[in-house]
Amino acid sequence: MTTLAIISGTGALPATLGGTEALYVTFSGVPADIPAGADRIEARFEQLGAMFDALRVAGIKEVVLAGAMSRPSFDPAALDAFTAAAMPRLMAAMGGGDDGLLQVVMEMFTDQGFVLKGAHELRPDLVLGVAVEIGAPDNQARADIARGQEILAALSALDLGQGCVVAGGLCLGIETLQGTDFLLDTVARSAPHLKRAPGVFVKLPKEGQDLRADMPTIGPDTIAAVARAGLGGVAIKAGAVLVLERGLVERALAEHGLFLVTL
Amino acid sequence: MTTLAIISGTGALPATLGGTEALYVTFSGVPADIPAGADRIEARFEQLGAMFDALRVAGIKEVVLAGAMSRPSFDPAALDAFTAAAMPRLMAAMGGGDDGLLQVVMEMFTDQGFVLKGAHELRPDLVLGVAVEIGAPDNQARADIARGQEILAALSALDLGQGCVVAGGLCLGIETLQGTDFLLDTVARSAPHLKRAPGVFVKLPKEGQDLRADMPTIGPDTIAAVARAGLGGVAIKAGAVLVLERGLVERALAEHGLFLVTL
Repeated sequence: MTTLAIISGTGALPATLGGTEALYVTFSGVPADIPAGADRIEARFEQLGAMFDALRVAGIKEVVLAGAMSRPSFDPAALDAFTAAAMPRLMAAMGGGDDGLLQVVMEMFTDQGFVLKGAHELRPDLVLGVAVEIGAPDNQARADIARGQEILAALSALDLGQGCVVAGGLCLGIETLQGTDFLLDTVARSAPHLKRAPGVFVKLPKEGQDLRADMPTIGPDTIAAVARAGLGGVAIKAGAVLVLERGLVERALAEHGLFLVTL
Repeated sequence: MTTLAIISGTGALPATLGGTEALYVTFSGVPADIPAGADRIEARFEQLGAMFDALRVAGIKEVVLAGAMSRPSFDPAALDAFTAAAMPRLMAAMGGGDDGLLQVVMEMFTDQGFVLKGAHELRPDLVLGVAVEIGAPDNQARADIARGQEILAALSALDLGQGCVVAGGLCLGIETLQGTDFLLDTVARSAPHLKRAPGVFVKLPKEGQDLRADMPTIGPDTIAAVARAGLGGVAIKAGAVLVLERGLVERALAEHGLFLVTL
Protein backbone atom coordinates (compact mmCIF):
# COMPACT_ATOMS: atom_id res chain seq x y z
CA MET A 1 0.00 0.00 0.00
CA THR A 2 1.32 3.40 -0.94
CA THR A 3 2.20 5.97 1.70
CA LEU A 4 2.60 8.78 -0.88
CA ALA A 5 -0.11 11.28 -1.76
CA ILE A 6 0.26 13.53 -4.81
CA ILE A 7 -1.50 16.87 -4.46
CA SER A 8 -2.30 17.22 -8.13
CA GLY A 9 -2.72 20.01 -10.62
CA THR A 10 -2.42 20.00 -14.39
CA GLY A 11 0.45 18.79 -16.55
CA ALA A 12 2.52 15.66 -16.85
CA LEU A 13 4.12 15.84 -13.40
CA PRO A 14 1.47 14.18 -11.20
CA ALA A 15 1.38 11.00 -13.30
CA THR A 16 5.16 11.07 -13.78
CA LEU A 17 5.68 11.02 -10.02
CA GLY A 18 2.96 8.58 -9.04
CA GLY A 19 2.16 6.23 -11.89
CA THR A 20 -0.78 4.13 -10.75
CA GLU A 21 0.71 3.48 -7.33
CA ALA A 22 0.21 6.72 -5.41
CA LEU A 23 -2.91 8.28 -3.96
CA TYR A 24 -3.92 11.38 -5.93
CA VAL A 25 -5.55 14.37 -4.28
CA THR A 26 -7.47 16.72 -6.55
CA PHE A 27 -9.55 19.73 -5.63
CA SER A 28 -13.13 20.29 -6.61
CA GLY A 29 -13.33 22.75 -9.49
CA VAL A 30 -9.57 22.77 -10.09
CA PRO A 31 -8.38 20.98 -13.24
CA ALA A 32 -5.91 18.15 -12.63
CA ASP A 33 -4.29 15.50 -14.81
CA ILE A 34 -4.09 12.11 -13.10
CA PRO A 35 -3.88 8.57 -14.51
CA ALA A 36 -7.17 6.84 -15.25
CA GLY A 37 -8.09 4.33 -12.59
CA ALA A 38 -5.70 5.69 -9.97
CA ASP A 39 -6.80 6.01 -6.35
CA ARG A 40 -8.07 9.49 -5.76
CA ILE A 41 -9.42 11.76 -3.06
CA GLU A 42 -11.44 14.73 -4.25
CA ALA A 43 -10.90 17.46 -1.67
CA ARG A 44 -12.24 20.98 -1.28
CA PHE A 45 -10.19 24.02 -0.38
CA GLU A 46 -12.88 24.95 2.11
CA GLN A 47 -12.55 21.59 3.86
CA LEU A 48 -8.87 21.01 4.47
CA GLY A 49 -9.64 19.37 7.82
CA ALA A 50 -11.60 16.67 6.02
CA MET A 51 -8.75 16.22 3.53
CA PHE A 52 -6.16 15.72 6.28
CA ASP A 53 -8.45 13.18 7.98
CA ALA A 54 -8.89 11.28 4.72
CA LEU A 55 -5.14 11.19 4.13
CA ARG A 56 -4.54 9.78 7.62
CA VAL A 57 -7.22 7.14 7.17
CA ALA A 58 -5.55 6.12 3.89
CA GLY A 59 -2.22 5.62 5.67
CA ILE A 60 -0.44 8.47 3.88
CA LYS A 61 2.92 9.57 5.36
CA GLU A 62 4.49 11.57 2.53
CA VAL A 63 3.05 14.29 0.35
CA VAL A 64 4.29 15.94 -2.85
CA LEU A 65 2.81 18.96 -4.63
CA ALA A 66 2.72 18.39 -8.38
CA GLY A 67 1.40 20.27 -11.38
CA ALA A 68 -0.01 23.71 -11.97
CA MET A 69 -2.94 24.70 -9.79
CA SER A 70 -5.11 27.75 -10.31
CA ARG A 71 -5.71 29.84 -7.23
CA PRO A 72 -8.83 28.74 -5.38
CA SER A 73 -11.95 30.77 -4.80
CA PHE A 74 -13.36 30.07 -1.37
CA ASP A 75 -17.00 29.54 -0.55
CA PRO A 76 -17.12 30.83 3.03
CA ALA A 77 -20.37 28.99 3.71
CA ALA A 78 -18.68 25.63 3.04
CA LEU A 79 -15.71 26.01 5.42
CA ASP A 80 -15.04 23.20 7.86
CA ALA A 81 -13.81 24.08 11.36
CA PHE A 82 -10.14 23.47 10.55
CA THR A 83 -10.18 25.67 7.46
CA ALA A 84 -12.23 28.40 9.14
CA ALA A 85 -9.58 28.58 11.87
CA ALA A 86 -6.83 28.77 9.22
CA MET A 87 -8.52 31.47 7.12
CA PRO A 88 -6.80 34.51 8.64
CA ARG A 89 -3.42 32.94 7.92
CA LEU A 90 -4.44 31.92 4.39
CA MET A 91 -5.90 35.32 3.57
CA ALA A 92 -2.79 37.11 4.83
CA ALA A 93 -0.61 34.82 2.73
CA MET A 94 -2.67 35.45 -0.41
CA GLY A 95 -1.79 39.14 -0.27
CA GLY A 96 1.93 38.39 -0.48
CA GLY A 97 4.08 37.14 -3.32
CA ASP A 98 3.47 33.95 -5.28
CA ASP A 99 5.26 31.89 -2.70
CA GLY A 100 3.38 33.14 0.35
CA LEU A 101 0.25 31.03 -0.07
CA LEU A 102 2.11 27.88 -1.07
CA GLN A 103 4.38 28.26 1.92
CA VAL A 104 1.40 28.37 4.28
CA VAL A 105 -0.21 25.34 2.61
CA MET A 106 3.07 23.44 2.95
CA GLU A 107 3.37 24.39 6.61
CA MET A 108 -0.12 23.02 7.15
CA PHE A 109 0.88 19.63 5.77
CA THR A 110 3.95 19.44 7.97
CA ASP A 111 2.01 20.73 11.01
CA GLN A 112 -0.39 17.84 10.42
CA GLY A 113 2.47 15.35 10.56
CA PHE A 114 3.03 14.66 6.87
CA VAL A 115 6.52 14.66 5.36
CA LEU A 116 6.70 17.00 2.37
CA LYS A 117 8.83 15.76 -0.50
CA GLY A 118 10.10 17.61 -3.54
CA ALA A 119 9.59 16.10 -6.97
CA HIS A 120 13.37 16.17 -7.43
CA GLU A 121 13.77 14.07 -4.26
CA LEU A 122 11.34 11.40 -5.42
CA ARG A 123 12.72 11.36 -8.95
CA PRO A 124 16.30 12.74 -9.09
CA ASP A 125 16.43 11.65 -12.73
CA LEU A 126 14.01 14.49 -13.60
CA VAL A 127 16.59 17.22 -13.05
CA LEU A 128 19.76 17.84 -15.06
CA GLY A 129 23.24 17.95 -13.55
CA VAL A 130 25.81 20.70 -13.84
CA ALA A 131 27.54 21.55 -17.11
CA VAL A 132 24.97 19.90 -19.38
CA GLU A 133 25.16 21.38 -22.87
CA ILE A 134 22.84 20.26 -25.62
CA GLY A 135 23.63 22.30 -28.72
CA ALA A 136 26.06 25.20 -28.52
CA PRO A 137 25.20 28.75 -27.38
CA ASP A 138 27.42 31.36 -29.03
CA ASN A 139 29.12 34.18 -27.14
CA GLN A 140 26.13 36.52 -27.48
CA ALA A 141 23.84 33.82 -26.12
CA ARG A 142 26.20 33.28 -23.18
CA ALA A 143 26.17 37.02 -22.46
CA ASP A 144 22.36 37.01 -22.66
CA ILE A 145 22.22 34.11 -20.21
CA ALA A 146 24.42 36.06 -17.77
CA ARG A 147 22.19 39.11 -18.11
CA GLY A 148 19.12 36.95 -17.47
CA GLN A 149 20.69 35.52 -14.31
CA GLU A 150 21.42 39.03 -13.10
CA ILE A 151 17.82 40.15 -13.68
CA LEU A 152 16.34 37.11 -11.94
CA ALA A 153 18.71 37.52 -8.99
CA ALA A 154 17.53 41.11 -8.49
CA LEU A 155 13.87 40.04 -8.59
CA SER A 156 14.44 36.99 -6.46
CA ALA A 157 14.79 39.09 -3.32
CA LEU A 158 11.22 40.27 -3.99
CA ASP A 159 9.79 36.75 -4.30
CA LEU A 160 9.23 37.38 -8.00
CA GLY A 161 10.39 36.01 -11.32
CA GLN A 162 11.35 32.44 -12.20
CA GLY A 163 12.09 33.22 -15.81
CA CYS A 164 13.05 35.91 -18.27
CA VAL A 165 13.95 36.40 -21.92
CA VAL A 166 17.04 38.36 -23.00
CA ALA A 167 18.12 38.97 -26.61
CA GLY A 168 21.22 40.89 -27.62
CA GLY A 169 21.66 42.24 -24.09
CA LEU A 170 18.12 43.58 -23.87
CA CYS A 171 15.32 42.16 -21.74
CA LEU A 172 12.19 41.26 -23.73
CA GLY A 173 10.15 39.74 -20.94
CA ILE A 174 10.00 38.80 -17.28
CA GLU A 175 7.84 35.98 -16.01
CA THR A 176 5.06 37.18 -13.75
CA LEU A 177 1.99 35.49 -12.29
CA GLN A 178 0.75 34.32 -15.72
CA GLY A 179 3.62 31.85 -16.04
CA THR A 180 6.14 30.62 -18.58
CA ASP A 181 3.84 29.90 -21.52
CA PHE A 182 2.34 33.36 -21.29
CA LEU A 183 5.81 34.94 -21.16
CA LEU A 184 7.00 33.08 -24.24
CA ASP A 185 3.78 33.85 -26.10
CA THR A 186 4.24 37.53 -25.24
CA VAL A 187 7.78 37.48 -26.62
CA ALA A 188 6.49 35.78 -29.77
CA ARG A 189 4.07 38.69 -30.27
CA SER A 190 6.81 41.32 -29.89
CA ALA A 191 8.04 43.32 -32.85
CA PRO A 192 10.85 41.32 -34.48
CA HIS A 193 13.03 44.42 -34.96
CA LEU A 194 13.55 44.60 -31.17
CA LYS A 195 15.71 41.51 -31.37
CA ARG A 196 19.29 41.98 -32.46
CA ALA A 197 20.18 38.41 -31.51
CA PRO A 198 18.06 35.23 -31.25
CA GLY A 199 17.96 35.48 -27.46
CA VAL A 200 17.57 33.04 -24.61
CA PHE A 201 14.95 31.93 -22.12
CA VAL A 202 16.47 31.69 -18.64
CA LYS A 203 14.59 29.64 -16.04
CA LEU A 204 15.76 29.41 -12.43
CA PRO A 205 14.17 28.94 -9.04
CA LYS A 206 14.12 32.07 -6.93
CA GLU A 207 17.09 32.25 -4.57
CA GLY A 208 16.18 30.43 -1.38
CA GLN A 209 13.00 29.05 -2.96
CA ASP A 210 11.71 25.88 -1.31
CA LEU A 211 11.87 23.44 -4.23
CA ARG A 212 9.11 21.33 -2.69
CA ALA A 213 6.68 24.06 -3.80
CA ASP A 214 6.16 25.26 -7.32
CA MET A 215 9.43 23.89 -8.65
CA PRO A 216 10.33 25.39 -12.02
CA THR A 217 9.46 22.92 -14.76
CA ILE A 218 10.06 22.66 -18.47
CA GLY A 219 8.89 20.10 -20.99
CA PRO A 220 8.48 19.61 -24.75
CA ASP A 221 5.77 22.30 -24.85
CA THR A 222 8.22 24.78 -23.34
CA ILE A 223 10.76 24.03 -26.08
CA ALA A 224 8.09 24.47 -28.74
CA ALA A 225 7.11 27.83 -27.20
CA VAL A 226 10.77 28.90 -27.12
CA ALA A 227 10.97 28.07 -30.83
CA ARG A 228 7.77 30.03 -31.60
CA ALA A 229 9.29 33.00 -29.76
CA GLY A 230 12.23 32.81 -32.16
CA LEU A 231 14.78 32.32 -29.40
CA GLY A 232 18.07 30.47 -29.73
CA GLY A 233 17.80 28.32 -26.63
CA VAL A 234 17.17 27.74 -22.97
CA ALA A 235 19.27 27.95 -19.81
CA ILE A 236 18.10 26.28 -16.60
CA LYS A 237 19.50 25.84 -13.12
CA ALA A 238 21.24 22.49 -12.62
CA GLY A 239 19.47 20.25 -10.12
CA ALA A 240 16.61 22.69 -9.60
CA VAL A 241 14.42 22.70 -12.71
CA LEU A 242 12.32 19.65 -13.57
CA VAL A 243 12.65 18.46 -17.15
CA LEU A 244 9.57 16.43 -18.01
CA GLU A 245 9.48 13.98 -20.92
CA ARG A 246 13.19 14.39 -21.52
CA GLY A 247 13.25 12.31 -24.68
CA LEU A 248 10.67 14.58 -26.28
CA VAL A 249 12.51 17.65 -24.98
CA GLU A 250 15.72 16.50 -26.67
CA ARG A 251 13.86 15.72 -29.86
CA ALA A 252 12.23 19.19 -29.86
CA LEU A 253 15.60 20.86 -29.26
CA ALA A 254 17.13 18.99 -32.19
CA GLU A 255 14.13 19.65 -34.43
CA HIS A 256 14.25 23.42 -33.85
CA GLY A 257 18.05 23.70 -33.64
CA LEU A 258 17.94 25.08 -30.09
CA PHE A 259 20.44 24.73 -27.27
CA LEU A 260 19.80 23.83 -23.64
CA VAL A 261 22.43 24.46 -20.99
CA THR A 262 22.50 24.12 -17.22
CA LEU A 263 23.87 26.78 -14.91
CA MET B 1 15.32 82.69 -35.11
CA THR B 2 15.07 79.60 -32.94
CA THR B 3 18.14 78.12 -31.26
CA LEU B 4 16.28 74.92 -30.27
CA ALA B 5 16.37 71.68 -32.23
CA ILE B 6 13.95 68.87 -31.43
CA ILE B 7 15.31 65.42 -32.21
CA SER B 8 11.98 63.92 -33.08
CA GLY B 9 10.31 60.54 -32.84
CA THR B 10 6.65 59.62 -32.77
CA GLY B 11 3.91 60.89 -30.44
CA ALA B 12 2.62 64.25 -29.31
CA LEU B 13 5.78 65.39 -27.54
CA PRO B 14 7.81 66.87 -30.43
CA ALA B 15 5.02 69.25 -31.48
CA THR B 16 4.13 69.99 -27.86
CA LEU B 17 7.66 71.17 -27.18
CA GLY B 18 8.34 73.02 -30.38
CA GLY B 19 5.13 74.25 -31.95
CA THR B 20 6.03 75.76 -35.30
CA GLU B 21 9.02 77.65 -33.86
CA ALA B 22 11.71 75.04 -33.37
CA LEU B 23 13.87 73.20 -35.86
CA TYR B 24 12.85 69.54 -36.09
CA VAL B 25 15.37 66.79 -36.77
CA THR B 26 13.99 63.51 -38.09
CA PHE B 27 15.87 60.44 -39.24
CA SER B 28 15.51 58.77 -42.57
CA GLY B 29 13.35 55.67 -42.24
CA VAL B 30 12.33 56.42 -38.66
CA PRO B 31 8.71 57.54 -38.17
CA ALA B 32 8.32 60.95 -36.53
CA ASP B 33 5.37 63.24 -35.80
CA ILE B 34 6.16 66.89 -36.43
CA PRO B 35 3.92 69.85 -37.27
CA ALA B 36 3.17 70.44 -40.94
CA GLY B 37 5.23 73.26 -42.38
CA ALA B 38 7.79 73.29 -39.57
CA ASP B 39 11.47 73.69 -40.34
CA ARG B 40 13.06 70.29 -40.60
CA ILE B 41 16.37 68.58 -41.13
CA GLU B 42 16.21 65.00 -42.32
CA ALA B 43 19.29 63.28 -40.93
CA ARG B 44 20.69 59.78 -41.24
CA PHE B 45 22.05 57.69 -38.40
CA GLU B 46 24.99 56.82 -40.60
CA GLN B 47 25.83 60.49 -41.09
CA LEU B 48 25.82 62.11 -37.68
CA GLY B 49 28.73 64.35 -38.68
CA ALA B 50 26.57 65.91 -41.41
CA MET B 51 23.73 66.36 -38.91
CA PHE B 52 25.93 68.21 -36.42
CA ASP B 53 27.23 70.45 -39.22
CA ALA B 54 23.67 71.25 -40.34
CA LEU B 55 22.63 72.11 -36.78
CA ARG B 56 25.58 74.48 -36.41
CA VAL B 57 24.82 76.15 -39.73
CA ALA B 58 21.21 76.66 -38.57
CA GLY B 59 22.40 78.43 -35.41
CA ILE B 60 21.17 75.74 -33.02
CA LYS B 61 22.44 75.95 -29.42
CA GLU B 62 20.01 73.71 -27.52
CA VAL B 63 18.76 70.24 -28.28
CA VAL B 64 15.94 68.16 -26.81
CA LEU B 65 15.14 64.52 -27.51
CA ALA B 66 11.41 64.01 -27.95
CA GLY B 67 9.15 61.14 -28.88
CA ALA B 68 9.59 57.42 -29.31
CA MET B 69 12.28 56.37 -31.75
CA SER B 70 12.78 52.85 -33.03
CA ARG B 71 16.33 51.58 -32.88
CA PRO B 72 18.21 52.32 -36.08
CA SER B 73 19.66 49.80 -38.46
CA PHE B 74 22.96 51.03 -39.83
CA ASP B 75 24.04 50.82 -43.43
CA PRO B 76 27.82 50.53 -42.99
CA ALA B 77 28.42 51.62 -46.59
CA ALA B 78 26.76 54.99 -45.91
CA LEU B 79 28.79 56.02 -42.84
CA ASP B 80 30.37 59.45 -42.84
CA ALA B 81 33.79 59.88 -41.23
CA PHE B 82 32.43 61.15 -37.91
CA THR B 83 29.99 58.27 -37.51
CA ALA B 84 32.51 55.67 -38.66
CA ALA B 85 34.86 56.88 -35.92
CA ALA B 86 32.04 56.69 -33.37
CA MET B 87 30.89 53.21 -34.35
CA PRO B 88 32.88 51.19 -31.80
CA ARG B 89 31.40 53.31 -29.01
CA LEU B 90 27.87 53.06 -30.46
CA MET B 91 28.10 49.32 -31.00
CA ALA B 92 29.34 48.74 -27.44
CA ALA B 93 26.50 50.86 -26.10
CA MET B 94 23.89 48.93 -28.08
CA GLY B 95 24.80 45.75 -26.23
CA GLY B 96 23.98 47.32 -22.86
CA GLY B 97 20.68 48.29 -21.28
CA ASP B 98 18.08 50.57 -22.87
CA ASP B 99 19.84 53.64 -21.54
CA GLY B 100 23.30 52.81 -22.84
CA LEU B 101 22.78 53.86 -26.44
CA LEU B 102 20.84 57.00 -25.58
CA GLN B 103 23.53 58.02 -23.13
CA VAL B 104 26.18 57.80 -25.83
CA VAL B 105 24.04 59.77 -28.28
CA MET B 106 23.50 62.43 -25.65
CA GLU B 107 27.20 62.61 -24.89
CA MET B 108 27.81 63.14 -28.60
CA PHE B 109 25.55 66.19 -28.63
CA THR B 110 27.25 67.74 -25.61
CA ASP B 111 30.72 66.86 -26.96
CA GLN B 112 29.73 68.79 -30.09
CA GLY B 113 28.93 71.85 -28.01
CA PHE B 114 25.14 71.65 -27.84
CA VAL B 115 23.24 72.10 -24.58
CA LEU B 116 20.94 69.17 -23.93
CA LYS B 117 17.61 70.08 -22.37
CA GLY B 118 14.97 67.86 -20.79
CA ALA B 119 11.36 68.24 -21.89
CA HIS B 120 10.48 68.98 -18.27
CA GLU B 121 12.97 71.88 -18.27
CA LEU B 122 11.50 73.46 -21.39
CA ARG B 123 7.93 72.89 -20.25
CA PRO B 124 7.70 72.44 -16.46
CA ASP B 125 3.91 72.52 -16.80
CA LEU B 126 4.07 69.05 -18.43
CA VAL B 127 4.95 67.29 -15.17
CA LEU B 128 2.80 66.96 -12.07
CA GLY B 129 3.86 68.13 -8.61
CA VAL B 130 3.97 66.11 -5.42
CA ALA B 131 0.82 64.86 -3.69
CA VAL B 132 -1.45 65.17 -6.71
CA GLU B 133 -4.49 62.89 -6.31
CA ILE B 134 -7.13 62.63 -8.99
CA GLY B 135 -9.71 60.11 -7.83
CA ALA B 136 -9.10 58.05 -4.70
CA PRO B 137 -7.04 54.84 -4.52
CA ASP B 138 -8.24 52.50 -1.77
CA ASN B 139 -5.91 50.80 0.72
CA GLN B 140 -5.32 47.80 -1.55
CA ALA B 141 -4.41 50.12 -4.40
CA ARG B 142 -1.98 51.98 -2.13
CA ALA B 143 -0.37 48.69 -1.12
CA ASP B 144 -0.13 47.70 -4.80
CA ILE B 145 1.55 51.02 -5.58
CA ALA B 146 4.10 50.41 -2.81
CA ARG B 147 4.80 46.93 -4.18
CA GLY B 148 5.25 48.36 -7.66
CA GLN B 149 7.74 50.92 -6.38
CA GLU B 150 9.68 48.15 -4.67
CA ILE B 151 9.83 46.07 -7.87
CA LEU B 152 10.93 49.00 -10.02
CA ALA B 153 13.58 50.00 -7.47
CA ALA B 154 15.09 46.50 -7.63
CA LEU B 155 15.16 46.57 -11.45
CA SER B 156 16.40 50.13 -11.61
CA ALA B 157 19.89 49.07 -10.53
CA LEU B 158 19.96 46.93 -13.69
CA ASP B 159 18.96 49.78 -16.02
CA LEU B 160 15.62 48.06 -16.60
CA GLY B 161 11.95 48.73 -16.01
CA GLN B 162 10.12 52.06 -16.07
CA GLY B 163 6.75 50.55 -15.34
CA CYS B 164 4.93 47.61 -13.82
CA VAL B 165 1.44 46.39 -13.00
CA VAL B 166 0.52 45.05 -9.57
CA ALA B 167 -2.93 43.78 -8.55
CA GLY B 168 -3.80 42.47 -5.11
CA GLY B 169 -0.13 42.28 -4.15
CA LEU B 170 0.84 40.21 -7.18
CA CYS B 171 2.86 41.42 -10.15
CA LEU B 172 1.11 40.96 -13.49
CA GLY B 173 3.65 42.63 -15.73
CA ILE B 174 6.97 44.44 -15.94
CA GLU B 175 7.74 46.87 -18.71
CA THR B 176 10.55 45.68 -20.95
CA LEU B 177 11.90 46.91 -24.28
CA GLN B 178 8.47 46.76 -25.96
CA GLY B 179 7.21 49.69 -23.88
CA THR B 180 4.17 50.77 -21.91
CA ASP B 181 1.43 50.10 -24.45
CA PHE B 182 2.67 46.56 -24.97
CA LEU B 183 2.78 45.97 -21.21
CA LEU B 184 -0.78 47.17 -20.71
CA ASP B 185 -2.01 45.16 -23.69
CA THR B 186 -0.32 42.09 -22.22
CA VAL B 187 -2.07 42.61 -18.90
CA ALA B 188 -5.37 43.04 -20.75
CA ARG B 189 -4.84 39.61 -22.33
CA SER B 190 -4.16 37.93 -18.98
CA ALA B 191 -6.66 35.56 -17.41
CA PRO B 192 -9.05 37.68 -15.31
CA HIS B 193 -9.02 35.20 -12.40
CA LEU B 194 -5.39 36.17 -11.67
CA LYS B 195 -6.59 39.54 -10.41
CA ARG B 196 -7.95 39.67 -6.88
CA ALA B 197 -8.03 43.49 -6.96
CA PRO B 198 -8.30 45.98 -9.83
CA GLY B 199 -4.60 46.76 -9.67
CA VAL B 200 -2.40 49.69 -10.56
CA PHE B 201 0.04 50.77 -13.25
CA VAL B 202 3.14 52.30 -11.68
CA LYS B 203 5.37 54.44 -13.90
CA LEU B 204 8.64 55.90 -12.66
CA PRO B 205 11.96 56.86 -14.14
CA LYS B 206 14.77 54.50 -13.26
CA GLU B 207 16.73 55.67 -10.22
CA GLY B 208 19.47 58.00 -11.41
CA GLN B 209 17.98 58.10 -14.92
CA ASP B 210 18.94 61.17 -16.92
CA LEU B 211 15.53 62.71 -17.58
CA ARG B 212 16.83 64.40 -20.72
CA ALA B 213 16.73 60.95 -22.37
CA ASP B 214 13.69 58.77 -22.74
CA MET B 215 11.68 60.51 -20.03
CA PRO B 216 8.69 58.43 -18.94
CA THR B 217 5.56 59.77 -20.58
CA ILE B 218 1.85 59.16 -20.27
CA GLY B 219 -1.06 60.59 -22.21
CA PRO B 220 -4.74 59.94 -22.93
CA ASP B 221 -3.87 56.74 -24.82
CA THR B 222 -2.10 55.44 -21.72
CA ILE B 223 -5.20 56.02 -19.61
CA ALA B 224 -7.35 54.24 -22.21
CA ALA B 225 -4.93 51.29 -22.18
CA VAL B 226 -5.03 51.20 -18.35
CA ALA B 227 -8.83 51.04 -18.57
CA ARG B 228 -8.70 48.22 -21.15
CA ALA B 229 -6.37 46.32 -18.80
CA GLY B 230 -9.09 46.58 -16.15
CA LEU B 231 -6.85 48.39 -13.68
CA GLY B 232 -8.01 50.85 -11.04
CA GLY B 233 -5.53 53.61 -11.71
CA VAL B 234 -2.07 54.98 -12.28
CA ALA B 235 0.77 56.15 -10.05
CA ILE B 236 3.59 58.27 -11.46
CA LYS B 237 6.66 59.96 -10.07
CA ALA B 238 6.10 63.64 -9.26
CA GLY B 239 8.16 65.95 -11.43
CA ALA B 240 9.60 63.13 -13.49
CA VAL B 241 6.90 61.75 -15.77
CA LEU B 242 5.56 63.83 -18.65
CA VAL B 243 1.80 64.07 -18.85
CA LEU B 244 0.83 64.96 -22.40
CA GLU B 245 -2.56 66.47 -23.29
CA ARG B 246 -3.48 66.84 -19.64
CA GLY B 247 -7.05 67.92 -20.30
CA LEU B 248 -7.71 64.74 -22.26
CA VAL B 249 -5.92 62.69 -19.60
CA GLU B 250 -8.21 64.09 -16.90
CA ARG B 251 -11.26 63.50 -19.06
CA ALA B 252 -10.21 59.88 -19.69
CA LEU B 253 -9.62 59.30 -15.97
CA ALA B 254 -13.09 60.63 -15.15
CA GLU B 255 -14.72 58.68 -17.97
CA HIS B 256 -13.25 55.36 -16.81
CA GLY B 257 -13.43 56.08 -13.07
CA LEU B 258 -9.67 55.72 -12.62
CA PHE B 259 -7.32 57.42 -10.18
CA LEU B 260 -3.98 59.09 -10.86
CA VAL B 261 -1.59 59.86 -8.02
CA THR B 262 1.95 61.21 -7.86
CA LEU B 263 4.65 59.67 -5.70
